[in-house]
Amino acid sequence: MGAANQIYIAVIGAGGVGKCFLSQLHGLAARKQSLKFRLCYISTSRKALYNDDYSEIAADGALEALAASSNAPLALPKIVDYLAAAPSRAILVDNTSSQDVADSYPLALGRGISVVTPNKKAFSGSYKLWKDIFTAAAMSGAKVYHESSVGAGLPVISTLKDLVDTGDRITKIEGVFSGTMSFLFNSFAPVEGKGGKWSDEVKKAKSLGYTEPDPRDDLNGLDVARKLTILARLAGLAIESPTSFPVQSLIPKELETCNTGDEFLAKLPEFDQQMEKIKADAESAGKVVRFVGSIDVGAGKVKVGLESFDRSHPIAALKGSDNIISFYTERYGSNPLIVQGAGAGGEVTAMGVTGDLLKVAAQIS
Amino acid sequence: MGAANQIYIAVIGAGGVGKCFLSQLHGLAARKQSLKFRLCYISTSRKALYNDDYSEIAADGALEALAASSNAPLALPKIVDYLAAAPSRAILVDNTSSQDVADSYPLALGRGISVVTPNKKAFSGSYKLWKDIFTAAAMSGAKVYHESSVGAGLPVISTLKDLVDTGDRITKIEGVFSGTMSFLFNSFAPVEGKGGKWSDEVKKAKSLGYTEPDPRDDLNGLDVARKLTILARLAGLAIESPTSFPVQSLIPKELETCNTGDEFLAKLPEFDQQMEKIKADAESAGKVVRFVGSIDVGAGKVKVGLESFDRSHPIAALKGSDNIISFYTERYGSNPLIVQGAGAGGEVTAMGVTGDLLKVAAQIS
Repeated sequence: MGAANQIYIAVIGAGGVGKCFLSQLHGLAARKQSLKFRLCYISTSRKALYNDDYSEIAADGALEALAASSNAPLALPKIVDYLAAAPSRAILVDNTSSQDVADSYPLALGRGISVVTPNKKAFSGSYKLWKDIFTAAAMSGAKVYHESSVGAGLPVISTLKDLVDTGDRITKIEGVFSGTMSFLFNSFAPVEGKGGKWSDEVKKAKSLGYTEPDPRDDLNGLDVARKLTILARLAGLAIESPTSFPVQSLIPKELETCNTGDEFLAKLPEFDQQMEKIKADAESAGKVVRFVGSIDVGAGKVKVGLESFDRSHPIAALKGSDNIISFYTERYGSNPLIVQGAGAGGEVTAMGVTGDLLKVAAQIS
Repeated sequence: MGAANQIYIAVIGAGGVGKCFLSQLHGLAARKQSLKFRLCYISTSRKALYNDDYSEIAADGALEALAASSNAPLALPKIVDYLAAAPSRAILVDNTSSQDVADSYPLALGRGISVVTPNKKAFSGSYKLWKDIFTAAAMSGAKVYHESSVGAGLPVISTLKDLVDTGDRITKIEGVFSGTMSFLFNSFAPVEGKGGKWSDEVKKAKSLGYTEPDPRDDLNGLDVARKLTILARLAGLAIESPTSFPVQSLIPKELETCNTGDEFLAKLPEFDQQMEKIKADAESAGKVVRFVGSIDVGAGKVKVGLESFDRSHPIAALKGSDNIISFYTERYGSNPLIVQGAGAGGEVTAMGVTGDLLKVAAQIS
């Protein structure tokens, strides 16, 4: 055990993404990748599985073994200590959406532990945390990769980094960054046909599992604002936080104080007229309305909210719950570089994490 | 000199892409990347510039210095010897489209020299060369990256590799892979409006610099066939060569024997009726015709040629000379992962090369 070419992996989180990630990690081993990953720690918020001698936890049986474990999870600094003392390089895979875990990245990175995660919190929280993370990584040489923090497995973060790193100048980034919002508006205001009532579409999206348990967590726009914060910072803007620029909430003011998501959904039909008017205004101009985020890099402006697009515009023509991200740059000129496809879902989110794991491993091994 | 964190770079080719690459290489140094690249060899087909002590050639003055050089280029095995004896790791950047240079990759890789290139020849020639290249790289640990061999700087190769490496199953790849063909068909059979005569559009494309000096080198479909060969092999198909599957040539049989491109262009109007009929047939079905390549991975079938698409299809809606590549996979389901944008041009092609350089350097330094 402990051969130098082995990479020790700790996984925090075993929800939808975590489960898919474990399956993909097992697949890597089954396909006999030259890099040897050794899963040595896995935890949920209540349980953990690990061995003091770093002996391997089989990825394909990890969930069952974890369920049977009687160990409580280690505190985050203890996980860092544990990984820092591993026989060779280690990667922390954070498959949670926890701010606490995100806050521990500078500590882990500073001690040479690389981080791979779909968790948006670290990169879209305070600008101080962002700087602490990348300063710690630069000092130690540890890597931090977070492709799935925007657009799940779509090559969004990597493409933006490549553009910036090779010296292109980003002028504008624009797109649909939420699978939920994409589904809602593609149904509510389709390019062809009439579309349903707003409140009906929200209910349908919830019943199909396309929204958070409380749909207001999608409709407040904060998820999109977090993704825009990440991209804007990578494009060079010192965005203070996801609430430091205009974000349009689709929660009617009167419903902000509802106690539950169900109460909100019950009262939402009373406000259908507001959304119907927005749709009609766009239609009378030959357009359709969409919920988009945009970053004007030159002007340093970020915004999130409703905008109207010609029916032939790629943003209007989006299907299902797909995301679309357009990068306008000096080199690409008037026609942007576009990435499009599913931007949510366990398998494609985990794919971004697994891809990052392979890229980090290739650099640290 | 010769510090261990330096990476020695030899550049072959100083044409359109080569010039842009040198400018981007200079930009890397100017932005004080932590990786230190040292240009120690540069050549065209007639001249070379290098120093026996590997002292640095300034990237921003390299072209002028090369023009003033009286050295002939080294033979390829000598370049390999020279780089293999460099004080630390070396990367060969092949900015040519030469088969001879491509044929030398196994030798370079076998001796631990990584290769970065937009040159399609190595990856779309014989299957034996493909195997020799990747076997040599696997044996020595040297890297070979070729993002710009398909779609220039668009993230096509990297996306396909990520999908495959993380265990997704590619079912189909489809797209417009030639900027020339994209421009020709977007003008000849636009989604809105009538479009021009075929021969007029070909002449216009040539006068705008969108075609090879002899437009038949685009119209024969071989460029697209080469790109499809590369993607099909990466998706797991053992494609023997770019002529081992059906490729539709748009050169009328009667004009294959023209002695010059000018003679071809002069006679092309006599055949406009053939293309006009193809356009009309598509229109009568409510569609537009496009020149596409597709790979059916399950059936092991690759083909290149004309196909008709609904006007609302992303391939129909393409603009200018953009490329579009759709990856259909098990994880992404019915809506493909799509990458779209300029797929030709010096700056964006060089960007793919520079991006690869950074990725290889991060792994070998």
